[in-house]
Amino acid sequence: MATESLEKIIDEFNRLPGIGKKSATRIAFHILNLSDEEVKRFAISLMEAKKNIKKCSICGDLSEHEICDICNNLSRDEETICIVEDSRDIISFERTGKYRGKYHVLGGKIAPLKGITPDKLNLESLLKRIANNPIKEVIIAINPDLEGETTSLYLTRLLKHFDVKITRIASGIPMGGNIEYADSATISRALEGRQEV
Amino acid sequence: MATESLEKIIDEFNRLPGIGKKSATRIAFHILNLSDEEVKRFAISLMEAKKNIKKCSICGDLSEHEICDICNNLSRDEETICIVEDSRDIISFERTGKYRGKYHVLGGKIAPLKGITPDKLNLESLLKRIANNPIKEVIIAINPDLEGETTSLYLTRLLKHFDVKITRIASGIPMGGNIEYADSATISRALEGRQEV
Repeated sequence: MATESLEKIIDEFNRLPGIGKKSATRIAFHILNLSDEEVKRFAISLMEAKKNIKKCSICGDLSEHEICDICNNLSRDEETICIVEDSRDIISFERTGKYRGKYHVLGGKIAPLKGITPDKLNLESLLKRIANNPIKEVIIAINPDLEGETTSLYLTRLLKHFDVKITRIASGIPMGGNIEYADSATISRALEGRQEV
Repeated sequence: MATESLEKIIDEFNRLPGIGKKSATRIAFHILNLSDEEVKRFAISLMEAKKNIKKCSICGDLSEHEICDICNNLSRDEETICIVEDSRDIISFERTGKYRGKYHVLGGKIAPLKGITPDKLNLESLLKRIANNPIKEVIIAINPDLEGETTSLYLTRLLKHFDVKITRIASGIPMGGNIEYADSATISRALEGRQEV
């Protein structure tokens, strides 16, 4: 019954990740209650973001410039590269304030069944980067799920040919987490990764 | 760290009801992965909806025309009006397919503490509608919370002056619900509203 224009925006929101039909409807009605200026600003910000944001030619992170702020930042450690799946992971690492090196965005995980073979990933530029720069350590920070494990293993083998230290971020019980509720894969990994104190 | 245009759309999504910072970020990255055409279509649909959708001059429901489809529909029962808070409620009623009468959108509930006094509601046109048309029954379908109860009571008193049957939709245990987990207000209402079978 709702009007055609309304159905259209409900559909648009419904297509976004994590937004079901009900939330989409609630949001659509919220949009109608905004002022003309607010809706215009929203619509324009979408188009602007899409237009302005490209991939950094060095690391593959999202950037409004040819080279992203992190790659351009001379005060960061040039000798360490942290390999992540996705730009979102960089945001999470940066939030901790603990990492001062550079990143490399792989753009996915190896998943042959989904058609994601190694040649689909941002690997060539990684190898060139390592070959042409004085890199000392490469940290593999791929999510520790099944496909992530395959990808990490693949990366480890690939990088063995270079004279760099290869490390992986630790997996284990999350801080504040509870061993009682942790799955056995996590507990096994936490055990394997135990460190002397 | 994220680029300025990206921060902007994350903010815009974060402002929508029910979308936190994390979901907003996930959606923003999803938007960047859409094609230029898809983003443009999304942005335009927002502005179009805002521009095209007005309120029906009879019932106050959202409509792209002066008079909405339901008010314009000659095959619907002209003698029954169902009073709802909000256009969204009409969608819910229509979905059941059980109601063939007309609607009237109040546009809110009486809530003096929030500054919503009866004169802020779409009441004047309701009274005119009832006075000038052969209405036989008015169904009050305001949500049964505290403010809704006040509003329903106010409406009942106001409509007593007209020669119409006034009814309220039933409150009680929801279908598939469990008496054990229902609050006592709901159980009391379910008891009061019991019907002979």
